[in-house]
Amino acid sequence: MLILPSARPARTAARNGHSTRVLIGNDFSEDVRTDRGWTGWWVQRIAWFAEDGDILVLPVRPEEDFLDYVTSSTGVRRESLTVVVPPAHAGSEGTLSPARLADPEFVEALELAVGEREVTHLSALWPDAAVARLAAALGVRDAMPGHGFVDQAGGVMVNSKSAFRTIAGGAGVPMPEGAVLVSPQVAEEAILDLLGGGPVMVKHDFLSGGRGNEILTTGETFRPIGARRVITVAGREDVRSYLRERWEWLTAGGRGRPVAERYVRDSSAFFSEFLLTDEGVELTGDGELLSAPYAVGQIMPSQGLEPEVLDGIVGGGRRLAEALHAIGYRGVLGPDAIVTPDREVLFTEYNGRVTGSTHIYGRIGGIVVGEGFGKDRIILERVWPEGWATTSFAAALAAVEGAGLRYDPATRTGVVLTNAFDGNNGVMYCIVAEDLASAWACDRALKPVFAIAGPAGSPARVPARP
Amino acid sequence: MLILPSARPARTAARNGHSTRVLIGNDFSEDVRTDRGWTGWWVQRIAWFAEDGDILVLPVRPEEDFLDYVTSSTGVRRESLTVVVPPAHAGSEGTLSPARLADPEFVEALELAVGEREVTHLSALWPDAAVARLAAALGVRDAMPGHGFVDQAGGVMVNSKSAFRTIAGGAGVPMPEGAVLVSPQVAEEAILDLLGGGPVMVKHDFLSGGRGNEILTTGETFRPIGARRVITVAGREDVRSYLRERWEWLTAGGRGRPVAERYVRDSSAFFSEFLLTDEGVELTGDGELLSAPYAVGQIMPSQGLEPEVLDGIVGGGRRLAEALHAIGYRGVLGPDAIVTPDREVLFTEYNGRVTGSTHIYGRIGGIVVGEGFGKDRIILERVWPEGWATTSFAAALAAVEGAGLRYDPATRTGVVLTNAFDGNNGVMYCIVAEDLASAWACDRALKPVFAIAGPAGSPARVPARP
Repeated sequence: MLILPSARPARTAARNGHSTRVLIGNDFSEDVRTDRGWTGWWVQRIAWFAEDGDILVLPVRPEEDFLDYVTSSTGVRRESLTVVVPPAHAGSEGTLSPARLADPEFVEALELAVGEREVTHLSALWPDAAVARLAAALGVRDAMPGHGFVDQAGGVMVNSKSAFRTIAGGAGVPMPEGAVLVSPQVAEEAILDLLGGGPVMVKHDFLSGGRGNEILTTGETFRPIGARRVITVAGREDVRSYLRERWEWLTAGGRGRPVAERYVRDSSAFFSEFLLTDEGVELTGDGELLSAPYAVGQIMPSQGLEPEVLDGIVGGGRRLAEALHAIGYRGVLGPDAIVTPDREVLFTEYNGRVTGSTHIYGRIGGIVVGEGFGKDRIILERVWPEGWATTSFAAALAAVEGAGLRYDPATRTGVVLTNAFDGNNGVMYCIVAEDLASAWACDRALKPVFAIAGPAGSPARVPARP
Repeated sequence: MLILPSARPARTAARNGHSTRVLIGNDFSEDVRTDRGWTGWWVQRIAWFAEDGDILVLPVRPEEDFLDYVTSSTGVRRESLTVVVPPAHAGSEGTLSPARLADPEFVEALELAVGEREVTHLSALWPDAAVARLAAALGVRDAMPGHGFVDQAGGVMVNSKSAFRTIAGGAGVPMPEGAVLVSPQVAEEAILDLLGGGPVMVKHDFLSGGRGNEILTTGETFRPIGARRVITVAGREDVRSYLRERWEWLTAGGRGRPVAERYVRDSSAFFSEFLLTDEGVELTGDGELLSAPYAVGQIMPSQGLEPEVLDGIVGGGRRLAEALHAIGYRGVLGPDAIVTPDREVLFTEYNGRVTGSTHIYGRIGGIVVGEGFGKDRIILERVWPEGWATTSFAAALAAVEGAGLRYDPATRTGVVLTNAFDGNNGVMYCIVAEDLASAWACDRALKPVFAIAGPAGSPARVPARP
């Protein structure tokens, strides 16, 4: 659980050097995914949550230009922050693996960084059991909200699509018709049942952004949204052979249970987000998720929704947040829903972690934009587009500035860079504008700044809402 | 959720033929265990829950002598009950498999049995998704408490030792030190950590009665209680090779996550039980679980506990029940705890199903014994002892009667047979007595009635609290 704007802490104690917080820039736990070695830059967004006196734990040294930019944007003294990077371990240089977080040399360095100060808060982007063990090693269990839950693999439960379906079913939250696939036999029957009514989405328990989804169909072909591919199946034999081939992948090698659900075409996707603390459940934000077919951006807050549709998104999300609060989860919860062409709200997953939206609405919206965010200002966030290129954070910032598009506190509009250089060719960004049309206009104005001539550049890695 | 004595329903509507309930005598879902083909007799205990006009669904025709005995004990008119047995399917003759519960011929027979009556309640011994699908097929979803939760594999979550540890950790319920083993790598580290402090229990996610537990130790040898065996390991290599060999079994072929916990020697085991309804959480019973090393019997209610220890058992159990209530589970929840030699109460699992205790305290205690149960009468329940034999339910009843030990409503003491003939050599039974010493004396008096001469008979199957 990281501190959100509505609760920006009194900073006196930290400024006086009496207390500190430990913020851990981790990514998906290796307990559920091992495909995340590239995310060393992505987790640097944790800098947006920093306050004076904080200790940031990161898998790699953060990009100084980015850190300077963020702290000057949020009014935090860069020199008051301490960054601790555990010794690299072979195979997990880019991630805070359980082994790196347990490394005695790192624990000692962290203790040294804390010094005589009281640790008033310890949390991470992802609620990994390895973080709970670190809190115990430091003797600061009580500073970690929801420690007992996370220590016993709670992070898996609040980031699992199968657990989502169970708990959403229990909470009476509407979902696309579907089932939890506890075995290949159950999967075969459930998929065949659903196929009678149209295409079926099969989802990996833990992957995100559409990368764990595949659509099965008996005939129609169409462009998949939020899925890797469309597979045509003729009947039971095809479904069985699909499952035989994909079961190991769908279950992450036995780590999870996939789900199947009716695929509703021409839907849009929205999220709400909640902060769960010992005091209760607080709505912190909402927005729209854009996919083509994978995540390409977000709009915050949601625009143009009928009030009853927005109520459905927020109300259902709150019921899920309250259910997870009751079993001891503390932190950010982002339930996702689709809105169908019939304006039905159907929930599709929840994300129990600091998402790729939290820093945008919570810190850039809440602090950089301030009071007007969600009133006279909206944010369009963009994944780095294919065919655009830059060479570093500083180069991207200079280019934006040179084009006269950098966020201006006077007009409260313009481009905010949201993360460090991705090590490839991009820097994620968002646009603060009066309305969506102006935001897209600004986005178009960026194209000549970054688009590379000739054949499109190497495809960017696409991290949105990992 | 089956009806417990405190809520024995007004039976007028059923007696007038206006309504009925469907009670499904299933066993562990095939979703989590496939070792239960022998339980056709064990699930007949559902007869204890029957009320006038009910429909019982069973995997095999029930033993008529047993059904007569039970209904005359509970004051239910045998002729008002309908028993429906789905057509047998190869491989699941003894169990209500998903395929048998979905068999169109069965669904039709069940609809015929319901006739014009309203189905006011449908539930099962085990909250299987296949039961939720049956309720949907009958068009009586609303009659099944917690339908949405069970439909989305909620039964797995409320019968999983790994989910138990997550939710207990979140609810702040005390447990033996330990971890959820999400992968062999996590398992290796967690087990090595724990071995530093003594023997470690490794538990299969879903097996029961101690059959899914193995103890790892670095040296000491001892008689295991509540576990299959003790394995000596010298260090990391041995733990790794144990896990390599057993991982497939420990995870039920990828269906679950095992757990590891500190093994506390010389502990006793207790349970509390709760009924979770839309109205809330109600304590329904408690007792002691006897193992040597597997389950051999139970004492209800718990005897001789210090009030603060009993408070710990019931209070922690209630916190777990409230957590599961909040995520939508409805039905019976039986949390188990051990009491250590230091009188610490540590929770070890929960069972979200009608357990092997529910009919004993709830129906035999609550209805056959009545008001005095738990006040001037206790119950000692016994798994059929090794070396005893009988040939049928009728033979067992006659033998008990002949020995003058049959339960007598006048004295409110004696032997109650609790289930149908096990098809092998036994009939489970319990003893109603004024105190535990008298109960054990009665048990000893039964030995000459059933003990067979010469070498002990073939070992009885041991089902207690499956």
